[in-house]
Amino acid sequence: MSSLMPDSCIFLLLVVLQLGAHAVEGVWPLPQKLLSSRERYTLEPRTLYFVYGRESSAQEGCSVLDAAFKRYFSLIFPEYTAGRLYHEISLDLLNGLNSESSSMYIKLIADYILRLTTGLETFSQLVYQDDDDTYFVNKTYIKDFPRFQFRGLMLDTSRHYLPLRTIFKTLDAMAYNKFNVFHWHIVDDPSFPFQSLAFPDLSRKGAFHPMTHIYTQSDVRKVISYARMRGIRVLPEFDSPGHTKSWGQGQPDLLTPCYTGNTPTGSVGPVNPALPSTYKFMWALLKEVTSVFPDSYIHLGGDEVNFSCWKSNPDIRTFMQKMGFGTDFAKLEGFYIENIVNITSALNKTSIVWQEVFDNHIQVSNLSLSVVEVWKAGCYLCKVRKVTKARLRVILAAPWYLDQPHNWAHYYNVWPLAFKGTEEQKKLVIGGEACMWGEYVDASNLAPRLWPRASATAERLWSDENQTNSLDKAFPRLNEFRCRLLRRGIQAEPLSVGHCKYEYEGI
Amino acid sequence: MSSLMPDSCIFLLLVVLQLGAHAVEGVWPLPQKLLSSRERYTLEPRTLYFVYGRESSAQEGCSVLDAAFKRYFSLIFPEYTAGRLYHEISLDLLNGLNSESSSMYIKLIADYILRLTTGLETFSQLVYQDDDDTYFVNKTYIKDFPRFQFRGLMLDTSRHYLPLRTIFKTLDAMAYNKFNVFHWHIVDDPSFPFQSLAFPDLSRKGAFHPMTHIYTQSDVRKVISYARMRGIRVLPEFDSPGHTKSWGQGQPDLLTPCYTGNTPTGSVGPVNPALPSTYKFMWALLKEVTSVFPDSYIHLGGDEVNFSCWKSNPDIRTFMQKMGFGTDFAKLEGFYIENIVNITSALNKTSIVWQEVFDNHIQVSNLSLSVVEVWKAGCYLCKVRKVTKARLRVILAAPWYLDQPHNWAHYYNVWPLAFKGTEEQKKLVIGGEACMWGEYVDASNLAPRLWPRASATAERLWSDENQTNSLDKAFPRLNEFRCRLLRRGIQAEPLSVGHCKYEYEGI
Repeated sequence: MSSLMPDSCIFLLLVVLQLGAHAVEGVWPLPQKLLSSRERYTLEPRTLYFVYGRESSAQEGCSVLDAAFKRYFSLIFPEYTAGRLYHEISLDLLNGLNSESSSMYIKLIADYILRLTTGLETFSQLVYQDDDDTYFVNKTYIKDFPRFQFRGLMLDTSRHYLPLRTIFKTLDAMAYNKFNVFHWHIVDDPSFPFQSLAFPDLSRKGAFHPMTHIYTQSDVRKVISYARMRGIRVLPEFDSPGHTKSWGQGQPDLLTPCYTGNTPTGSVGPVNPALPSTYKFMWALLKEVTSVFPDSYIHLGGDEVNFSCWKSNPDIRTFMQKMGFGTDFAKLEGFYIENIVNITSALNKTSIVWQEVFDNHIQVSNLSLSVVEVWKAGCYLCKVRKVTKARLRVILAAPWYLDQPHNWAHYYNVWPLAFKGTEEQKKLVIGGEACMWGEYVDASNLAPRLWPRASATAERLWSDENQTNSLDKAFPRLNEFRCRLLRRGIQAEPLSVGHCKYEYEGI
Repeated sequence: MSSLMPDSCIFLLLVVLQLGAHAVEGVWPLPQKLLSSRERYTLEPRTLYFVYGRESSAQEGCSVLDAAFKRYFSLIFPEYTAGRLYHEISLDLLNGLNSESSSMYIKLIADYILRLTTGLETFSQLVYQDDDDTYFVNKTYIKDFPRFQFRGLMLDTSRHYLPLRTIFKTLDAMAYNKFNVFHWHIVDDPSFPFQSLAFPDLSRKGAFHPMTHIYTQSDVRKVISYARMRGIRVLPEFDSPGHTKSWGQGQPDLLTPCYTGNTPTGSVGPVNPALPSTYKFMWALLKEVTSVFPDSYIHLGGDEVNFSCWKSNPDIRTFMQKMGFGTDFAKLEGFYIENIVNITSALNKTSIVWQEVFDNHIQVSNLSLSVVEVWKAGCYLCKVRKVTKARLRVILAAPWYLDQPHNWAHYYNVWPLAFKGTEEQKKLVIGGEACMWGEYVDASNLAPRLWPRASATAERLWSDENQTNSLDKAFPRLNEFRCRLLRRGIQAEPLSVGHCKYEYEGI
């Protein structure tokens, strides 16, 4: 759960029930193997039981699965309100085993607990209703596994604060799309909503509001737990040395004072890399952060560092000379990053950085980079090729910037491995993520901007590329999936003219 | 209410209460005259009473105002849930009169009942809360009236069906923005959701779904009543002869069969203007429509008529010869429009048409056009000039197509009267409207796409142009207004980085 270990785990889903015609358009994202027949069976809420198989290594009491059974029962039968029927359900299904009831026979096999929750998601998408609202499922055989192990979605809670409720709702929708990493770009220039116990002034002075616009550690734990129950890891990002304006509000000497000639201008630049106090602070902050976020990875940012303020500062220039950096400020940046990466390693966490760190500092002697996130537009596959050639792992974000106004097809027509490279290199592309930067997005418009466009990314990261290279084939399936999202309360916007049986009536 | 009569009516708002500092950024749209002082007074829900003035021509029992008082009480004091305090409020305020209570003195004068509801809106926007959530209002003098009498918002319920709830919510937000016309583009090619009693097959066969995706006449009456209570007229559009594909589903011989040579292709084109049955049908349909919609205007469409199908049809060509139209299909179109406009006149309604009708048919002898809606991009003011030169009234829509992805500033930087023309001509520009076409919009994303971008249009149509020609000045006020919309449950999207005291938590 809390590591980037390969989740090549497989799940099998076998549905065999009772007779008919018509079916669903399919499952989104498309399973690796799906054989469906026209044989249709009715599903009855009163007779559907999930039961753990007798030989299953997971049994009742496995909180993730117990909760998933409850959740998916409601998702499969939306007309049966939560709680109403729960006392009648004996939870079940699973790991190498099967259950049978008078009216159906469903087998879900997996070698990994969280894979089972994705299996339940797949099963839930096979269920459909006719005009009389009877539930049906067609006889189906599915063998499935994800193409990439890292399938992320990034939210930015600094440019706008996102209420917990909005984050939870996004995690719900992520699970429906089989995303498994919530990359939480939690702080940045505009605000610092993370409540640090070691440095309470960071949010007290750096958040938009010290009480209403922060994430307490209890909030963070709720998010992590909510995500974990849905098979999603939470990857925190504390971006530095740039993108840190809000940090300076609560940590006075952290940022570099900018100068005009010999006079401080009053404004500040990136983190001051010349002061020992900076590293002491970063150690303490990262120690706290890594204790709050259990994931074994942490995103350290490192993007878009502007050197002009460093250049203007006489103390920085003195430090440069002392260190023998000459006038090469990239070396200073490298020095800073090296220290932060070392702190992270000492805290037993692996660091992820944005591509600039690779671009500028691949030569830095002591820098042990491991995962590089490629985000810049242009020939991003050229960059993927270079990074993998340097034997580093890659997360691809460049083609999936959802704050851009492209339609779903733009995000679907992406081929992450279409670069010249060895098999080894291709394996180093561990996945990708859809990024939703927050300049123009908050709780008011996040959902329709995310969905179903992020679903295009989700399929690209989960499904076999050869089976999903046609927009025309994908369109009706995505359209149906979008209606399913609406039905589940996700405010997914329409792809084109048309309608859903159940329109959004949320507000 | 149900006519385009000039609403040059004036309202005065005078607020005089009890002491402080800080104030609101202002009112949106900006009043014609606003003098505010730093003198701040507290407002207390338990002591605010609305009372009709003794000499007011309107008195308790005036349903529009009684309801407006209740509504605005809740909007002014959002923490006081609806109903809880109503039994304690004696309704009041008004028309040439004033009321006084121990703690305050508010005078609202108007020569027109609906102007008073806009006055209440203005008053509600003057109220603000401090960090302790105490309510305040600053001493303020306001004299206000709208720049244009027609301030419309168009919704398209054919490309996507919009649930009643979504329409109501939009009408709420329209009132907050002082829009006064809901232009209901109710039917079009993709679907015919209007339930006609005379021709029930139109929605039975032409709607996306005959039961769940239609507007019954009771639904329509609810919308009209809901709008009326908020000072908003409902202008229905039944667009023909193009944009009528869905009509053909339930009215078999209405549309023109297209041909290849002498063989019908099976597809259909615009309404068939050569058949007497067409006009009989249109008469009956428009008779019903005009009885359901009380507004004295009706929008007849007339845009984007494609002649190729007409050209292909041998019967149409025969009719052209008989009528002496030669091969000029614009004449055929003119003939159709003339008939429809005449039907409308006979039904005592005034017609509004899209600009093509003016472009193609200003020469048609018997065509008595009155209001032309200018929608085409390019030099739209050239068109406004031409139409007004022909002494016809203009509604301007071209610069306010909200389905385009422009930001608020684009819609704000519009100068509807910046064309060379006489004073007479300028007076013929009766207003404008923001149009939200429905290709990519339904209930899931309508609100954040409308608000606050449509608010830019609203201010342009209400306020004095010279006082509202600065984006920089407008920005903080619009930002505050947007937060106010959020607080009122309108899912208005953010304009830029930042936060609202109360973020959207609707979902």
